[in-house]
Amino acid sequence: MSESFSLAPPGVSIAEVHAGNRERLVAALRNHLSAAGRPLRGGIVLLQGGEEQTRYCTDHVPLFRQESYFAYLFGVREPGFYGAVDIASGQSILFAPRLSPGNVIWMGEKDLPYFKDMYKVDLVFYVDELAQVLRRQFSEHGHGEPLLFLLYGRNTDSGNYSRPASFDGIDKFDTDLSTLHPILTECRVIKSDMELALIQHANDVSSEAHIKVMRRIKPGMKEQKLANIFCCHASMYEGCRHCAYTCICATGQNTSILHYGQNDGTVNDGDMALMDMGAEYNFYGSDITCSYPTNGKFTRSQAVVYNAVLKAHNDVISHMRPGVNWIDMHKLAERRILESLKEEDIIHGDIGDMMERRLGAVFMPHGLGHLLGIDAHDPGGYPEGLERPDEPGLRSLRTTRELKQGMVITVEPGCYFIDALLRRARDDPICSEFFNWEKIEMYRSFGGVRIESNVYVTAQGCKNLTNCPREICEIEAVMAGAPWHSRDSCSSATTIENGLPKA
Amino acid sequence: MSESFSLAPPGVSIAEVHAGNRERLVAALRNHLSAAGRPLRGGIVLLQGGEEQTRYCTDHVPLFRQESYFAYLFGVREPGFYGAVDIASGQSILFAPRLSPGNVIWMGEKDLPYFKDMYKVDLVFYVDELAQVLRRQFSEHGHGEPLLFLLYGRNTDSGNYSRPASFDGIDKFDTDLSTLHPILTECRVIKSDMELALIQHANDVSSEAHIKVMRRIKPGMKEQKLANIFCCHASMYEGCRHCAYTCICATGQNTSILHYGQNDGTVNDGDMALMDMGAEYNFYGSDITCSYPTNGKFTRSQAVVYNAVLKAHNDVISHMRPGVNWIDMHKLAERRILESLKEEDIIHGDIGDMMERRLGAVFMPHGLGHLLGIDAHDPGGYPEGLERPDEPGLRSLRTTRELKQGMVITVEPGCYFIDALLRRARDDPICSEFFNWEKIEMYRSFGGVRIESNVYVTAQGCKNLTNCPREICEIEAVMAGAPWHSRDSCSSATTIENGLPKA
Repeated sequence: MSESFSLAPPGVSIAEVHAGNRERLVAALRNHLSAAGRPLRGGIVLLQGGEEQTRYCTDHVPLFRQESYFAYLFGVREPGFYGAVDIASGQSILFAPRLSPGNVIWMGEKDLPYFKDMYKVDLVFYVDELAQVLRRQFSEHGHGEPLLFLLYGRNTDSGNYSRPASFDGIDKFDTDLSTLHPILTECRVIKSDMELALIQHANDVSSEAHIKVMRRIKPGMKEQKLANIFCCHASMYEGCRHCAYTCICATGQNTSILHYGQNDGTVNDGDMALMDMGAEYNFYGSDITCSYPTNGKFTRSQAVVYNAVLKAHNDVISHMRPGVNWIDMHKLAERRILESLKEEDIIHGDIGDMMERRLGAVFMPHGLGHLLGIDAHDPGGYPEGLERPDEPGLRSLRTTRELKQGMVITVEPGCYFIDALLRRARDDPICSEFFNWEKIEMYRSFGGVRIESNVYVTAQGCKNLTNCPREICEIEAVMAGAPWHSRDSCSSATTIENGLPKA
Repeated sequence: MSESFSLAPPGVSIAEVHAGNRERLVAALRNHLSAAGRPLRGGIVLLQGGEEQTRYCTDHVPLFRQESYFAYLFGVREPGFYGAVDIASGQSILFAPRLSPGNVIWMGEKDLPYFKDMYKVDLVFYVDELAQVLRRQFSEHGHGEPLLFLLYGRNTDSGNYSRPASFDGIDKFDTDLSTLHPILTECRVIKSDMELALIQHANDVSSEAHIKVMRRIKPGMKEQKLANIFCCHASMYEGCRHCAYTCICATGQNTSILHYGQNDGTVNDGDMALMDMGAEYNFYGSDITCSYPTNGKFTRSQAVVYNAVLKAHNDVISHMRPGVNWIDMHKLAERRILESLKEEDIIHGDIGDMMERRLGAVFMPHGLGHLLGIDAHDPGGYPEGLERPDEPGLRSLRTTRELKQGMVITVEPGCYFIDALLRRARDDPICSEFFNWEKIEMYRSFGGVRIESNVYVTAQGCKNLTNCPREICEIEAVMAGAPWHSRDSCSSATTIENGLPKA
C-alpha cells in the first residue's frame, strides 16, 4: 500500500486478555455457587470451540472464525478445540484435535507444547483424551465426581441457542446447562482494561480506514470499491484479518436501507454516503458509521438532516454514565432529531405529543445502539427478567439496560426517509397531522444519515473510542485533503465526565 | 490504490452465461430422456439456492456466496431463491423470497421485475407461490402431471451430498432424485466460450495480483500481509468480491504444508515462498500458485527443485490434448521430478523402479490437478463407474478422467521435503535405498515448490490461461522491477497445439 500504517498495536499480551477473561469467569462462578450453597469442587466449565464448515456439498472451506464465547475464554484461532476451566483451582485445559498422519501432510503438524505456549493455558491434551482427562484430573485427585457446566442459552439478537459442548462419553458425566450462560454472558458485558485496549485499537484502525474512504470517494465509483478500500486498509494491520461484520456501503437512496450490504450501486454526485464498517482486532470489533456527501460538500438539506443526527449523537454521549437507562438515551436521541426536523418545518406540532405517538420511530426505526465486543452485536442486552419493549423503535433496541461502568456500547442515531414508513405514517390520520408533506416530498429521495461511535462507560461518564471527523466543517476539510488529528489527541479529548443527575 | 487497474472485463453478458448454461442442461436432459424413452413434457428441473447462515448462535451473517449449481444455472447473487427450468419448453422461472414489511426496512425492496431483468429469466414469482406456479404452469397447460428433477448426488472431493430442493407441498409432486445430478455435473465439466472468458478474466486478475505480491515481498513481512496484498488487488476489480479459496501464503518450511492457510509466519531472507491464491470473477474462479525466493534471487538448490517442478509443469502442458489420460499426466510429472532429483544425486537408482515403488508420491503427495470452474475443485472428477485409484499419490487425484475439449483443469506439480513422508520412506528398507540421505538432509528445511497454472483443453491441444513469470530469469527480473508482458501477448503465446499421439 502506498499509504503509511502508523498505528502501533496496543501494548497488551493477547494470551493475557483471555487469561483475564477466564479469571473473571471463575470469580463470578465461585461467587454464584457459594451464594447458592453449592460446592466448587468438581465443577468444570467445558466449552466446545467452533468447527470448520464446508460450503454446501463441496470441500470449499471458508476462512474460519472462532465461536465468540470460546474466543472470549481461550482466544484459540484454530477449529476443533475444546476448552475447560476448573472452577475450584482456576486451572485451564485446552484439548486440540488430533490430526491423522494423512492430515498432517495437508494441514501441518502443531504439537501440544505449541498450543500450550501459544494460548498460555495450564494443560493441553488431545480431544480424544477429553473424557479420560476430565475424570482423572478431578475425581482421582479427590475432587469428587466432576460436574460439567455447559454453555446453553439464548442469544437475544438472533433468537438462536448456543450449542452445549458434546463429546463421546459425555453421558457418563453430570452436566449443568443453566448456570454458565447468564454468568459468562454478563462477564462479556463488562470489559476489562485489556479488552478495552483491543477495542480501542480496532477503533483506531477503523477510524483511519474510514478517513481513507472519505478521501477516495468520488462520483462514478462503485459502492463495493469503497468497502474494499476500507477492508484492505484495515486488513494490512496485523491481527485484523476479519472485519467485524459485512460492510454497509450505501449511497443515495440505498442509505435508507438499514442493513444494506449489496454495495452494488454507483456513487452519484450530490448524493449522501452512509458507510457502516468496522475492523476486528484479535476477535474484538469496532462498529462505526460515517455519513457525508459523496462530493465532499454538504447541501443545505444534507446539513439539516446531518446536524439533527449529530446533535442526537453528541447529546446522548454527553449524558452517558453509569446508572443511565438506555431507553432514556434512545428517547433523548429521538427527541433531538424531532426538534431539529421541527425547526426546519419538516414536521410540526408538540414534541411531547410526537414522542407519545412514537413519531421518532418513523425517522429512526432502529435502536440507538448495542453492546459491542467479540461480536458486533455482543450478547447480554436482555438478561433474564428484562423484557423487550413493544413500541415502535423501542422494540428494535438490542438492550434496554442501565449503563454500567465497563460497558462498550454503540451510539448510532439515524434519520432516514423510508418510503414504507412514511406511507404508513400518512395513512394514520393522527400521525399524518405532524408531517409537512410538502417538505417531506423534497426529502423523498434523500435516503438517510447515521452517525455511529463506540463508547466506553467510565466511572463518572464515558469515553468515545471512535476518532472520525464529525462536525460538517471537519468532514469537508478532511475530504478536501486536510490532515486529521492523531489518535492520542483524540483519545484524551473525548473522555467525558458526565456529572449530570440521573435521568 | 496507487497502481493502475488495466484489465478490461471480458465482453460477455453475465446473464447470458447462465442462460447458455441452462440451454446446455436442457439439451442434455432432452437427449437423455429421449434415449431412455421417457417423456419430456411435465419435466421440471428445480433447484434451491443457498440461504444465509448465521455464525453460531449470533445474528452475525457472513458474506453470502451462492451455492455453485444454483449459481451455474441462474447466476443469482441473493440468498433464499428457487429456480426452475421446464425441460420441454426451456422456459426458466425464478422464485424470490418475499420480505415481510419489517424486513423491507432492513433489507430494501427489490421487486420481481428487478430480478427478472437482472437475471434474464422468463418468469419470476415469489417463493411462497412455488407449488401453485409449478402446478399451474405445467398441469393446467396440458403438460401432464409435473415431475420435479431434483439435485441429489455426491461431491467426490468432499464426500458430501447435495441437498435436493425442498418446499412446503413438495410431497404432492412426483420427484426424480437420480437423473439430474450426473447430467448437470457433466455440463459443468465442459466450459462454454462465455464461461471460459470469465475464467480467463479471473486468471488475468490473479496473474496481475500475483506479480504485485512478488514485487512487494521482503524479509520481515508477515505472510498474511502478502495474502492481503493479493486479495486487495483482486477485489478492486468489479465482480471479484470473493476469492476462489482461502489464500495459502507460505514461506520457509510452511511451504511443505499442502493446505497451509494460517499465514501467520514471518518472511525470512533466503527462504522460498509458495503463494497459492486465486480470484473469483462472477462466480468463476482461478487457482494459481507461484513459487519464488523471498529475496528475489534463487540459490542453486532452490533452482534445482524449482526447475524440476517447472519441467514437470511444462512437459505436462506440452502433452495435454483431448483423449490424454490424467493419470498418465500425473505420472509424467512424477517422472520428470524424479529425473531431475536423480540428476542432482538426491535420489539414485532406476527411474522405472522408483515409479513402481510410487516414490514420486514422497515428493508430490497430492494430485497433479483438478477441474476448475464455479468451484475451485469443480465437480465431475469421478463420474459414475470411474474408481479412485488406491496407490500413494494417485489416490489423491481429484480426477482420473481422459481430457476432453472444453475442460479447464489445473496443472500443479510440486516437490516438497515433508518430514513425515521422508521418515516413512527411510523406514521402508526397499524405498530407503533410492535416497541419498546425506543430500536429503541438506534439503530438510527447504519446504517445497509448487507451480500451478489453469489450462483449457482445446480441440488439438490446450491453452494456458495463467500469465505469471515462470522461468527463473523471468521471476528474478520481475521481482527486480522489470515490466511483465501484457495479457494479449501471453494469451496468444500460450495456446499449444499438441500433435503427439495418445499416451
